[in-house]
Amino acid sequence: VPNALAPIGVFDSGVGGLSVVRALRRALPHDDVLYLGDTARLPYGSKPLAMVRGFAAESAAYLVDQRVKAIVVACNSASAAALPALAETIPVPVWGVVEPGVAAALAARRGGAVGVLGTTATIESNAYQSRLGRAGVPNWGRACPLFVPIVEERLADTPIAALVAEHYLFDRPADLDTVILACTHYPALAPTLGRLLGERVQLVDSAETTAQVVASELRSAGLVAPGPGPGRVRHLVTGDTDVFRHTAAALDWLAGEVSPLPLSELARSRSGVRA
Amino acid sequence: VPNALAPIGVFDSGVGGLSVVRALRRALPHDDVLYLGDTARLPYGSKPLAMVRGFAAESAAYLVDQRVKAIVVACNSASAAALPALAETIPVPVWGVVEPGVAAALAARRGGAVGVLGTTATIESNAYQSRLGRAGVPNWGRACPLFVPIVEERLADTPIAALVAEHYLFDRPADLDTVILACTHYPALAPTLGRLLGERVQLVDSAETTAQVVASELRSAGLVAPGPGPGRVRHLVTGDTDVFRHTAAALDWLAGEVSPLPLSELARSRSGVRA
Repeated sequence: VPNALAPIGVFDSGVGGLSVVRALRRALPHDDVLYLGDTARLPYGSKPLAMVRGFAAESAAYLVDQRVKAIVVACNSASAAALPALAETIPVPVWGVVEPGVAAALAARRGGAVGVLGTTATIESNAYQSRLGRAGVPNWGRACPLFVPIVEERLADTPIAALVAEHYLFDRPADLDTVILACTHYPALAPTLGRLLGERVQLVDSAETTAQVVASELRSAGLVAPGPGPGRVRHLVTGDTDVFRHTAAALDWLAGEVSPLPLSELARSRSGVRA
Repeated sequence: VPNALAPIGVFDSGVGGLSVVRALRRALPHDDVLYLGDTARLPYGSKPLAMVRGFAAESAAYLVDQRVKAIVVACNSASAAALPALAETIPVPVWGVVEPGVAAALAARRGGAVGVLGTTATIESNAYQSRLGRAGVPNWGRACPLFVPIVEERLADTPIAALVAEHYLFDRPADLDTVILACTHYPALAPTLGRLLGERVQLVDSAETTAQVVASELRSAGLVAPGPGPGRVRHLVTGDTDVFRHTAAALDWLAGEVSPLPLSELARSRSGVRA
Protein backbone atom coordinates (compact mmCIF):
# COMPACT_ATOMS: atom_id res chain seq x y z
CA VAL A 1 0.00 0.00 0.00
CA PRO A 2 1.50 3.37 -0.99
CA ASN A 3 2.28 5.54 2.00
CA ALA A 4 2.50 9.33 1.65
CA LEU A 5 4.86 9.47 4.64
CA ALA A 6 7.42 7.14 3.06
CA PRO A 7 10.53 8.76 1.56
CA ILE A 8 11.10 9.39 -2.14
CA GLY A 9 14.06 7.30 -3.29
CA VAL A 10 16.54 9.01 -5.61
CA PHE A 11 19.63 7.42 -7.12
CA ASP A 12 22.63 8.49 -9.17
CA SER A 13 26.21 7.36 -9.70
CA GLY A 14 27.54 10.30 -7.68
CA VAL A 15 26.64 13.76 -6.42
CA GLY A 16 25.13 15.11 -9.66
CA GLY A 17 21.65 13.81 -8.83
CA LEU A 18 21.60 16.11 -5.81
CA SER A 19 20.69 18.89 -8.26
CA VAL A 20 17.41 17.00 -8.76
CA VAL A 21 17.02 16.58 -4.98
CA ARG A 22 17.41 20.33 -4.49
CA ALA A 23 14.66 21.00 -7.02
CA LEU A 24 12.48 18.24 -5.49
CA ARG A 25 12.75 19.76 -2.01
CA ARG A 26 11.65 23.14 -3.28
CA ALA A 27 8.62 21.49 -4.90
CA LEU A 28 7.86 19.08 -2.02
CA PRO A 29 9.25 20.66 1.16
CA HIS A 30 7.72 18.16 3.61
CA ASP A 31 8.85 14.99 1.87
CA ASP A 32 11.70 12.81 3.09
CA VAL A 33 14.30 11.80 0.50
CA LEU A 34 16.53 8.73 0.56
CA TYR A 35 19.43 9.41 -1.83
CA LEU A 36 21.64 6.55 -3.04
CA GLY A 37 24.96 7.58 -4.64
CA ASP A 38 26.82 4.62 -6.15
CA THR A 39 30.17 6.38 -5.95
CA ALA A 40 32.17 3.13 -5.78
CA ARG A 41 31.14 2.36 -9.36
CA LEU A 42 31.03 5.84 -10.90
CA PRO A 43 31.17 6.99 -13.61
CA TYR A 44 28.24 5.22 -15.26
CA GLY A 45 28.41 7.25 -18.47
CA SER A 46 31.50 5.54 -19.90
CA LYS A 47 30.31 2.01 -19.10
CA PRO A 48 28.31 -0.37 -21.31
CA LEU A 49 24.55 0.08 -21.27
CA ALA A 50 23.95 -3.47 -20.01
CA MET A 51 26.23 -2.83 -17.03
CA VAL A 52 24.55 0.50 -16.23
CA ARG A 53 21.17 -1.22 -16.53
CA GLY A 54 22.34 -3.80 -13.95
CA PHE A 55 23.57 -1.08 -11.57
CA ALA A 56 20.24 0.75 -11.89
CA ALA A 57 18.27 -2.43 -11.20
CA GLU A 58 20.29 -2.99 -8.02
CA SER A 59 19.78 0.56 -6.76
CA ALA A 60 16.07 0.54 -7.53
CA ALA A 61 15.58 -2.83 -5.81
CA TYR A 62 17.52 -1.64 -2.77
CA LEU A 63 15.35 1.48 -2.49
CA VAL A 64 12.19 -0.63 -2.78
CA ASP A 65 13.50 -2.77 0.10
CA GLN A 66 13.83 0.48 2.08
CA ARG A 67 10.09 1.04 1.43
CA VAL A 68 10.30 4.23 -0.61
CA LYS A 69 6.99 5.42 -2.09
CA ALA A 70 8.50 6.33 -5.48
CA ILE A 71 11.88 6.38 -7.24
CA VAL A 72 13.61 9.10 -9.25
CA VAL A 73 16.49 7.98 -11.45
CA ALA A 74 18.46 11.24 -11.19
CA CYS A 75 21.19 10.18 -13.60
CA ASN A 76 20.91 10.59 -17.34
CA SER A 77 23.01 7.52 -18.13
CA ALA A 78 20.97 5.28 -15.81
CA SER A 79 17.66 6.78 -17.00
CA ALA A 80 18.65 6.29 -20.63
CA ALA A 81 19.86 2.73 -20.07
CA ALA A 82 17.23 1.40 -17.68
CA LEU A 83 13.96 3.17 -18.45
CA PRO A 84 11.20 2.45 -19.32
CA ALA A 85 11.99 -1.27 -18.80
CA LEU A 86 12.94 -0.84 -15.13
CA ALA A 87 9.56 0.72 -14.32
CA GLU A 88 7.84 -2.53 -15.30
CA THR A 89 9.64 -4.62 -12.67
CA ILE A 90 9.49 -2.10 -9.81
CA PRO A 91 6.33 -1.95 -7.65
CA VAL A 92 6.42 1.84 -7.06
CA PRO A 93 6.29 4.75 -9.55
CA VAL A 94 9.65 5.36 -11.26
CA TRP A 95 10.67 8.57 -13.08
CA GLY A 96 13.82 9.30 -15.01
CA VAL A 97 15.24 12.58 -16.28
CA VAL A 98 14.93 11.82 -20.02
CA GLU A 99 11.19 12.39 -20.56
CA PRO A 100 11.16 15.66 -18.58
CA GLY A 101 14.28 16.84 -20.45
CA VAL A 102 12.64 16.12 -23.80
CA ALA A 103 9.45 17.90 -22.68
CA ALA A 104 11.48 20.96 -21.64
CA ALA A 105 13.28 20.99 -25.01
CA LEU A 106 10.02 20.74 -26.93
CA ALA A 107 8.70 23.71 -24.94
CA ALA A 108 11.88 25.76 -25.52
CA ARG A 109 12.31 24.94 -29.20
CA ARG A 110 11.48 27.54 -31.86
CA GLY A 111 11.34 25.38 -34.98
CA GLY A 112 14.98 24.35 -35.39
CA ALA A 113 16.91 21.19 -34.53
CA VAL A 114 17.39 19.98 -30.94
CA GLY A 115 20.87 18.89 -29.88
CA VAL A 116 21.62 16.43 -27.09
CA LEU A 117 24.96 16.50 -25.28
CA GLY A 118 25.56 13.60 -22.87
CA THR A 119 27.78 10.74 -21.79
CA THR A 120 28.62 7.89 -24.15
CA ALA A 121 26.00 5.69 -22.46
CA THR A 122 23.29 8.32 -22.75
CA ILE A 123 23.97 9.13 -26.40
CA GLU A 124 24.50 5.49 -27.46
CA SER A 125 21.22 4.50 -25.82
CA ASN A 126 19.47 6.82 -28.30
CA ALA A 127 16.93 7.51 -25.53
CA TYR A 128 16.69 11.26 -26.16
CA GLN A 129 17.09 11.14 -29.93
CA SER A 130 14.42 8.48 -30.45
CA ARG A 131 11.88 10.42 -28.35
CA LEU A 132 12.63 13.63 -30.24
CA GLY A 133 12.37 11.74 -33.52
CA ARG A 134 8.98 10.31 -32.56
CA ALA A 135 7.84 13.89 -31.84
CA GLY A 136 8.91 14.78 -35.40
CA VAL A 137 11.79 16.99 -34.23
CA PRO A 138 15.06 17.06 -36.19
CA ASN A 139 17.77 16.14 -33.68
CA TRP A 140 21.47 15.58 -33.25
CA GLY A 141 23.30 13.82 -30.39
CA ARG A 142 26.93 13.96 -29.37
CA ALA A 143 28.76 12.03 -26.62
CA CYS A 144 31.13 14.36 -24.74
CA PRO A 145 33.24 12.12 -22.46
CA LEU A 146 35.68 14.91 -21.55
CA PHE A 147 33.00 17.25 -20.16
CA VAL A 148 32.58 15.48 -16.78
CA PRO A 149 36.32 15.41 -15.92
CA ILE A 150 36.64 19.02 -17.14
CA VAL A 151 33.86 20.11 -14.76
CA GLU A 152 35.32 18.05 -11.91
CA GLU A 153 38.74 19.65 -12.53
CA ARG A 154 37.06 23.10 -12.27
CA LEU A 155 38.08 23.90 -15.85
CA ALA A 156 34.51 24.51 -17.09
CA ASP A 157 35.15 28.19 -17.83
CA THR A 158 38.64 27.98 -19.43
CA PRO A 159 40.15 27.84 -22.94
CA ILE A 160 40.51 24.06 -22.49
CA ALA A 161 36.73 23.73 -22.11
CA ALA A 162 36.20 26.04 -25.09
CA LEU A 163 38.50 23.98 -27.33
CA VAL A 164 36.90 20.70 -26.24
CA ALA A 165 33.40 22.13 -26.77
CA GLU A 166 34.40 23.23 -30.29
CA HIS A 167 35.73 19.71 -30.92
CA TYR A 168 32.45 18.09 -29.90
CA LEU A 169 30.16 20.62 -31.57
CA PHE A 170 32.02 21.37 -34.81
CA ASP A 171 29.53 19.51 -37.02
CA ARG A 172 26.31 20.61 -35.28
CA PRO A 173 23.31 21.31 -37.52
CA ALA A 174 23.10 24.87 -38.84
CA ASP A 175 19.53 25.26 -37.56
CA LEU A 176 20.27 24.11 -33.99
CA ASP A 177 18.17 26.25 -31.65
CA THR A 178 17.93 24.16 -28.46
CA VAL A 179 20.51 21.99 -26.67
CA ILE A 180 19.65 19.50 -23.92
CA LEU A 181 22.41 19.30 -21.29
CA ALA A 182 21.79 15.59 -20.76
CA CYS A 183 24.14 15.07 -17.81
CA THR A 184 23.89 16.57 -14.32
CA HIS A 185 27.48 17.91 -14.61
CA TYR A 186 26.94 19.90 -17.79
CA PRO A 187 25.09 23.00 -16.48
CA ALA A 188 28.54 24.14 -15.20
CA LEU A 189 29.56 24.41 -18.88
CA ALA A 190 26.66 26.71 -19.77
CA PRO A 191 28.81 29.90 -20.00
CA THR A 192 31.34 28.20 -22.31
CA LEU A 193 28.63 26.60 -24.45
CA GLY A 194 26.74 29.90 -24.55
CA ARG A 195 29.78 31.73 -25.94
CA LEU A 196 30.30 29.03 -28.57
CA LEU A 197 26.66 28.68 -29.62
CA GLY A 198 25.52 32.27 -29.28
CA GLU A 199 22.38 33.65 -27.65
CA ARG A 200 20.14 32.19 -30.33
CA VAL A 201 20.60 28.67 -28.89
CA GLN A 202 18.79 27.79 -25.67
CA LEU A 203 20.32 25.38 -23.15
CA VAL A 204 17.92 23.03 -21.35
CA ASP A 205 18.70 21.26 -18.06
CA SER A 206 16.30 18.59 -16.80
CA ALA A 207 16.70 18.76 -12.98
CA GLU A 208 14.01 21.41 -12.46
CA THR A 209 11.56 19.91 -14.97
CA THR A 210 11.99 16.44 -13.48
CA ALA A 211 11.16 17.72 -10.01
CA GLN A 212 8.03 19.45 -11.38
CA VAL A 213 6.84 16.23 -13.02
CA VAL A 214 7.47 14.14 -9.89
CA ALA A 215 5.73 16.69 -7.63
CA SER A 216 2.74 16.99 -9.89
CA GLU A 217 2.24 13.23 -10.27
CA LEU A 218 2.71 12.49 -6.54
CA ARG A 219 0.18 15.23 -5.83
CA SER A 220 -2.35 13.64 -8.23
CA ALA A 221 -1.82 10.28 -6.51
CA GLY A 222 -2.34 11.78 -3.03
CA LEU A 223 1.19 10.73 -2.11
CA VAL A 224 2.67 14.05 -0.95
CA ALA A 225 3.80 14.24 2.69
CA PRO A 226 1.43 16.64 4.49
CA GLY A 227 3.94 18.35 6.77
CA PRO A 228 4.04 20.63 8.68
CA GLY A 229 7.70 19.76 9.41
CA PRO A 230 10.45 19.99 6.79
CA GLY A 231 11.40 16.76 5.03
CA ARG A 232 14.59 14.97 5.98
CA VAL A 233 17.26 13.86 3.50
CA ARG A 234 19.52 10.85 4.05
CA HIS A 235 22.41 10.01 1.72
CA LEU A 236 23.70 6.45 1.31
CA VAL A 237 26.92 6.05 -0.65
CA THR A 238 28.74 2.95 -1.85
CA GLY A 239 32.11 4.74 -1.88
CA ASP A 240 33.91 7.01 0.55
CA THR A 241 31.51 9.00 2.75
CA ASP A 242 33.99 11.82 3.49
CA VAL A 243 34.64 12.46 -0.19
CA PHE A 244 30.91 12.47 -0.93
CA ARG A 245 30.24 14.86 1.95
CA HIS A 246 33.06 17.15 0.84
CA THR A 247 32.06 17.22 -2.85
CA ALA A 248 28.36 17.65 -2.12
CA ALA A 249 29.06 20.43 0.39
CA ALA A 250 31.36 22.24 -2.09
CA LEU A 251 28.44 22.30 -4.55
CA ASP A 252 26.12 23.44 -1.72
CA TRP A 253 24.02 20.32 -2.34
CA LEU A 254 24.56 18.44 0.94
CA ALA A 255 21.17 18.10 2.63
CA GLY A 256 21.50 15.58 5.47
CA GLU A 257 23.50 12.79 7.00
CA VAL A 258 25.75 10.56 4.85
CA SER A 259 26.08 6.83 5.60
CA PRO A 260 28.06 4.07 3.91
CA LEU A 261 26.24 1.37 1.91
CA PRO A 262 28.39 -1.68 1.09
CA LEU A 263 28.12 -2.83 -2.54
CA SER A 264 27.44 -6.36 -1.26
CA GLU A 265 24.10 -5.13 0.14
CA LEU A 266 23.11 -3.64 -3.21
CA ALA A 267 23.83 -6.92 -5.00
CA ARG A 268 21.87 -8.81 -2.35
CA SER A 269 18.74 -6.71 -2.70
CA ARG A 270 18.81 -7.17 -6.47
CA SER A 271 18.74 -10.94 -6.27
CA GLY A 272 15.98 -10.62 -3.67
CA VAL A 273 13.73 -8.87 -6.17
CA ARG A 274 14.59 -11.31 -8.92
CA ALA A 275 13.86 -14.40 -6.82
CA VAL B 1 54.72 -24.35 -1.04
CA PRO B 2 55.57 -22.15 -4.04
CA ASN B 3 54.98 -23.88 -7.34
CA ALA B 4 56.84 -22.81 -10.49
CA LEU B 5 53.97 -24.11 -12.64
CA ALA B 6 51.36 -21.88 -10.96
CA PRO B 7 50.30 -18.74 -12.85
CA ILE B 8 51.53 -15.23 -12.13
CA GLY B 9 48.58 -13.11 -10.95
CA VAL B 10 48.33 -9.60 -12.40
CA PHE B 11 45.66 -7.05 -11.56
CA ASP B 12 44.62 -3.60 -12.73
CA SER B 13 41.46 -1.52 -12.86
CA GLY B 14 41.15 -2.03 -16.62
CA VAL B 15 43.13 -2.94 -19.72
CA GLY B 16 46.19 -0.74 -19.03
CA GLY B 17 47.95 -3.43 -17.01
CA LEU B 18 48.03 -5.60 -20.13
CA SER B 19 51.05 -3.50 -21.18
CA VAL B 20 52.84 -5.09 -18.21
CA VAL B 21 51.54 -8.54 -19.21
CA ARG B 22 52.93 -8.09 -22.71
CA ALA B 23 56.36 -7.24 -21.30
CA LEU B 24 56.12 -10.13 -18.79
CA ARG B 25 55.39 -12.64 -21.55
CA ARG B 26 58.42 -11.54 -23.52
CA ALA B 27 60.56 -12.02 -20.39
CA LEU B 28 58.90 -15.25 -19.20
CA PRO B 29 57.44 -16.94 -22.30
CA HIS B 30 56.51 -20.22 -20.61
CA ASP B 31 54.64 -18.73 -17.63
CA ASP B 32 50.87 -18.72 -17.29
CA VAL B 33 49.27 -15.40 -16.36
CA LEU B 34 45.94 -14.85 -14.60
CA TYR B 35 44.88 -11.25 -15.26
CA LEU B 36 42.16 -9.60 -13.17
CA GLY B 37 40.67 -6.39 -14.60
CA ASP B 38 38.29 -4.68 -12.17
CA THR B 39 36.48 -2.85 -14.95
CA ALA B 40 33.20 -2.54 -13.00
CA ARG B 41 34.92 -0.17 -10.56
CA LEU B 42 37.34 1.67 -12.87
CA PRO B 43 38.80 4.23 -12.80
CA TYR B 44 40.80 3.82 -9.60
CA GLY B 45 42.86 7.00 -10.10
CA SER B 46 40.11 9.46 -9.21
CA LYS B 47 38.95 7.56 -6.12
CA PRO B 48 40.12 7.98 -2.51
CA LEU B 49 43.29 6.10 -1.54
CA ALA B 50 41.51 4.11 1.17
CA MET B 51 38.96 2.87 -1.37
CA VAL B 52 41.65 1.93 -3.89
CA ARG B 53 43.54 0.15 -1.10
CA GLY B 54 40.39 -1.88 -0.36
CA PHE B 55 39.92 -2.77 -4.04
CA ALA B 56 43.57 -3.88 -4.27
CA ALA B 57 43.26 -6.03 -1.13
CA GLU B 58 40.23 -7.76 -2.64
CA SER B 59 41.96 -8.47 -5.97
CA ALA B 60 45.14 -9.73 -4.29
CA ALA B 61 43.18 -12.01 -1.95
CA TYR B 62 41.17 -13.38 -4.87
CA LEU B 63 44.33 -14.16 -6.84
CA VAL B 64 45.84 -15.90 -3.80
CA ASP B 65 42.68 -18.04 -3.60
CA GLN B 66 43.34 -18.97 -7.24
CA ARG B 67 46.79 -20.22 -6.13
CA VAL B 68 48.99 -17.83 -8.08
CA LYS B 69 52.71 -18.05 -7.29
CA ALA B 70 53.23 -14.26 -7.28
CA ILE B 71 51.26 -11.07 -7.84
CA VAL B 72 52.01 -8.00 -9.97
CA VAL B 73 49.98 -4.87 -9.20
CA ALA B 74 50.00 -3.53 -12.77
CA CYS B 75 48.20 -0.28 -11.90
CA ASN B 76 49.99 2.80 -10.67
CA SER B 77 47.09 3.99 -8.52
CA ALA B 78 46.71 0.59 -6.81
CA SER B 79 50.49 0.19 -6.40
CA ALA B 80 50.80 3.66 -4.91
CA ALA B 81 47.84 3.17 -2.57
CA ALA B 82 48.36 -0.41 -1.44
CA LEU B 83 52.09 -1.13 -1.47
CA PRO B 84 54.22 -1.91 0.50
CA ALA B 85 51.53 -2.62 3.16
CA LEU B 86 49.66 -5.16 0.99
CA ALA B 87 52.81 -7.29 0.56
CA GLU B 88 52.87 -7.93 4.32
CA THR B 89 49.44 -9.58 4.38
CA ILE B 90 49.79 -11.61 1.19
CA PRO B 91 51.55 -15.02 1.36
CA VAL B 92 53.17 -14.80 -2.11
CA PRO B 93 55.64 -12.24 -3.52
CA VAL B 94 53.95 -8.98 -4.59
CA TRP B 95 55.44 -6.37 -6.93
CA GLY B 96 54.05 -3.00 -7.94
CA VAL B 97 55.05 -0.63 -10.71
CA VAL B 98 56.27 2.22 -8.49
CA GLU B 99 59.68 0.88 -7.39
CA PRO B 100 60.62 -0.22 -10.94
CA GLY B 101 59.48 3.15 -12.32
CA VAL B 102 61.61 5.01 -9.78
CA ALA B 103 64.60 2.76 -10.57
CA ALA B 104 64.18 3.46 -14.29
CA ALA B 105 64.00 7.22 -13.64
CA LEU B 106 67.14 7.13 -11.50
CA ALA B 107 68.96 5.30 -14.30
CA ALA B 108 67.73 7.78 -16.95
CA ARG B 109 68.33 10.96 -14.95
CA ARG B 110 71.26 13.25 -15.77
CA GLY B 111 71.41 15.41 -12.66
CA GLY B 112 68.18 17.41 -12.95
CA ALA B 113 64.77 17.11 -11.34
CA VAL B 114 62.47 14.13 -11.91
CA GLY B 115 58.82 14.81 -12.69
CA VAL B 116 55.96 12.41 -11.99
CA LEU B 117 52.71 12.60 -13.98
CA GLY B 118 49.92 10.36 -12.70
CA THR B 119 46.34 10.07 -11.52
CA THR B 120 45.09 11.98 -8.48
CA ALA B 121 45.40 8.84 -6.34
CA THR B 122 48.98 8.17 -7.47
CA ILE B 123 50.19 11.73 -6.95
CA GLU B 124 48.32 12.24 -3.65
CA SER B 125 49.79 9.01 -2.27
CA ASN B 126 53.22 10.63 -2.63
CA ALA B 127 54.55 7.12 -3.39
CA TYR B 128 56.86 8.19 -6.21
CA GLN B 129 57.86 11.56 -4.77
CA SER B 130 58.78 10.16 -1.34
CA ARG B 131 60.99 7.45 -2.88
CA LEU B 132 62.71 9.98 -5.13
CA GLY B 133 63.17 12.28 -2.14
CA ARG B 134 64.72 9.49 -0.07
CA ALA B 135 67.16 8.94 -2.96
CA GLY B 136 68.09 12.64 -2.69
CA VAL B 137 66.53 13.50 -6.06
CA PRO B 138 64.70 16.82 -6.53
CA ASN B 139 61.23 15.94 -7.74
CA TRP B 140 57.91 17.37 -8.78
CA GLY B 141 54.54 15.58 -9.09
CA ARG B 142 51.40 16.57 -10.92
CA ALA B 143 47.99 14.88 -11.05
CA CYS B 144 46.62 14.90 -14.62
CA PRO B 145 43.01 13.67 -14.39
CA LEU B 146 42.19 14.64 -17.99
CA PHE B 147 44.95 12.51 -19.53
CA VAL B 148 43.15 9.15 -19.24
CA PRO B 149 39.90 10.33 -20.88
CA ILE B 150 41.92 12.13 -23.56
CA VAL B 151 43.77 8.91 -24.41
CA GLU B 152 40.55 6.89 -24.32
CA GLU B 153 38.93 9.44 -26.67
CA ARG B 154 41.89 8.96 -29.08
CA LEU B 155 42.80 12.64 -28.71
CA ALA B 156 46.36 11.99 -27.44
CA ASP B 157 47.99 13.58 -30.47
CA THR B 158 45.75 16.65 -30.94
CA PRO B 159 45.77 20.37 -29.99
CA ILE B 160 43.42 19.50 -27.11
CA ALA B 161 46.05 17.21 -25.58
CA ALA B 162 48.74 19.85 -26.17
CA LEU B 163 46.71 22.55 -24.38
CA VAL B 164 45.89 20.23 -21.47
CA ALA B 165 49.55 19.15 -21.18
CA GLU B 166 50.61 22.82 -21.08
CA HIS B 167 48.02 23.40 -18.35
CA TYR B 168 49.38 20.59 -16.19
CA LEU B 169 53.06 21.27 -16.83
CA PHE B 170 53.15 25.09 -16.84
CA ASP B 171 54.98 25.32 -13.50
CA ARG B 172 57.40 22.43 -13.96
CA PRO B 173 60.92 22.91 -12.57
CA ALA B 174 63.37 24.55 -14.98
CA ASP B 175 65.89 21.72 -14.52
CA LEU B 176 63.41 18.89 -15.23
CA ASP B 177 65.29 16.23 -17.20
CA THR B 178 63.26 13.06 -16.62
CA VAL B 179 59.50 12.47 -16.44
CA ILE B 180 57.89 9.27 -15.12
CA LEU B 181 54.67 8.43 -17.00
CA ALA B 182 53.09 7.00 -13.85
CA CYS B 183 49.92 5.63 -15.44
CA THR B 184 49.60 2.83 -18.00
CA HIS B 185 47.57 5.13 -20.30
CA TYR B 186 50.18 7.89 -20.53
CA PRO B 187 52.70 6.39 -23.00
CA ALA B 188 50.14 7.28 -25.71
CA LEU B 189 50.82 10.95 -24.85
CA ALA B 190 54.58 10.63 -25.37
CA PRO B 191 54.59 12.47 -28.75
CA THR B 192 52.61 15.41 -27.34
CA LEU B 193 54.68 15.56 -24.15
CA GLY B 194 57.88 15.24 -26.18
CA ARG B 195 56.93 18.28 -28.29
CA LEU B 196 56.12 20.31 -25.18
CA LEU B 197 59.17 19.29 -23.13
CA GLY B 198 61.76 19.04 -25.89
CA GLU B 199 64.30 16.32 -26.56
CA ARG B 200 66.28 17.16 -23.45
CA VAL B 201 63.62 15.56 -21.22
CA GLN B 202 63.41 11.78 -21.09
CA LEU B 203 60.08 10.00 -20.63
CA VAL B 204 60.10 6.86 -18.49
CA ASP B 205 57.40 4.16 -18.58
CA SER B 206 57.45 1.40 -15.97
CA ALA B 207 55.83 -1.56 -17.77
CA GLU B 208 59.08 -2.90 -19.24
CA THR B 209 61.15 -2.30 -16.09
CA THR B 210 58.52 -3.95 -13.91
CA ALA B 211 58.54 -7.07 -16.09
CA GLN B 212 62.36 -7.21 -15.88
CA VAL B 213 62.27 -7.00 -12.08
CA VAL B 214 59.59 -9.69 -11.78
CA ALA B 215 61.40 -12.03 -14.20
CA SER B 216 64.73 -11.59 -12.48
CA GLU B 217 63.35 -12.18 -8.98
CA LEU B 218 61.26 -15.20 -9.99
CA ARG B 219 64.36 -16.62 -11.68
CA SER B 220 66.42 -16.16 -8.49
CA ALA B 221 63.68 -17.94 -6.52
CA GLY B 222 63.58 -20.87 -8.95
CA LEU B 223 59.94 -20.06 -9.71
CA VAL B 224 60.03 -19.68 -13.49
CA ALA B 225 57.91 -22.14 -15.51
CA PRO B 226 60.31 -24.45 -17.39
CA GLY B 227 58.41 -24.78 -20.65
CA PRO B 228 58.75 -25.92 -23.36
CA GLY B 229 55.19 -24.82 -24.24
CA PRO B 230 54.10 -21.19 -24.38
CA GLY B 231 52.39 -19.81 -21.27
CA ARG B 232 48.65 -19.31 -21.29
CA VAL B 233 46.90 -16.04 -20.34
CA ARG B 234 43.41 -15.90 -18.83
CA HIS B 235 41.57 -12.62 -18.24
CA LEU B 236 38.91 -12.24 -15.54
CA VAL B 237 36.91 -9.02 -15.59
CA THR B 238 34.36 -7.63 -13.16
CA GLY B 239 32.67 -5.57 -15.86
CA ASP B 240 31.50 -6.30 -19.39
CA THR B 241 33.58 -9.03 -21.08
CA ASP B 242 32.78 -7.89 -24.64
CA VAL B 243 33.96 -4.34 -23.97
CA PHE B 244 37.15 -5.62 -22.34
CA ARG B 245 37.82 -7.97 -25.26
CA HIS B 246 37.17 -5.20 -27.79
CA THR B 247 39.33 -2.58 -26.02
CA ALA B 248 42.19 -5.00 -25.34
CA ALA B 249 42.12 -6.26 -28.92
CA ALA B 250 42.15 -2.70 -30.30
CA LEU B 251 45.36 -2.08 -28.33
CA ASP B 252 46.72 -5.45 -29.56
CA TRP B 253 47.00 -6.55 -25.93
CA LEU B 254 44.43 -9.37 -25.84
CA ALA B 255 46.29 -12.58 -24.99
CA GLY B 256 43.74 -15.25 -24.09
CA GLU B 257 40.20 -16.00 -23.06
CA VAL B 258 38.09 -13.46 -21.16
CA SER B 259 35.67 -14.57 -18.42
CA PRO B 260 33.34 -12.65 -16.12
CA LEU B 261 34.15 -12.35 -12.40
CA PRO B 262 31.23 -11.10 -10.28
CA LEU B 263 32.18 -8.38 -7.78
CA SER B 264 30.48 -10.43 -5.06
CA GLU B 265 33.21 -13.09 -5.45
CA LEU B 266 35.95 -10.51 -5.01
CA ALA B 267 34.40 -9.20 -1.81
CA ARG B 268 33.99 -12.76 -0.52
CA SER B 269 37.64 -13.69 -1.01
CA ARG B 270 38.75 -10.55 0.81
CA SER B 271 36.86 -11.47 3.93
CA GLY B 272 38.26 -14.99 3.62
CA VAL B 273 41.82 -13.72 3.90
CA ARG B 274 40.93 -11.40 6.75
CA ALA B 275 39.18 -14.08 8.79
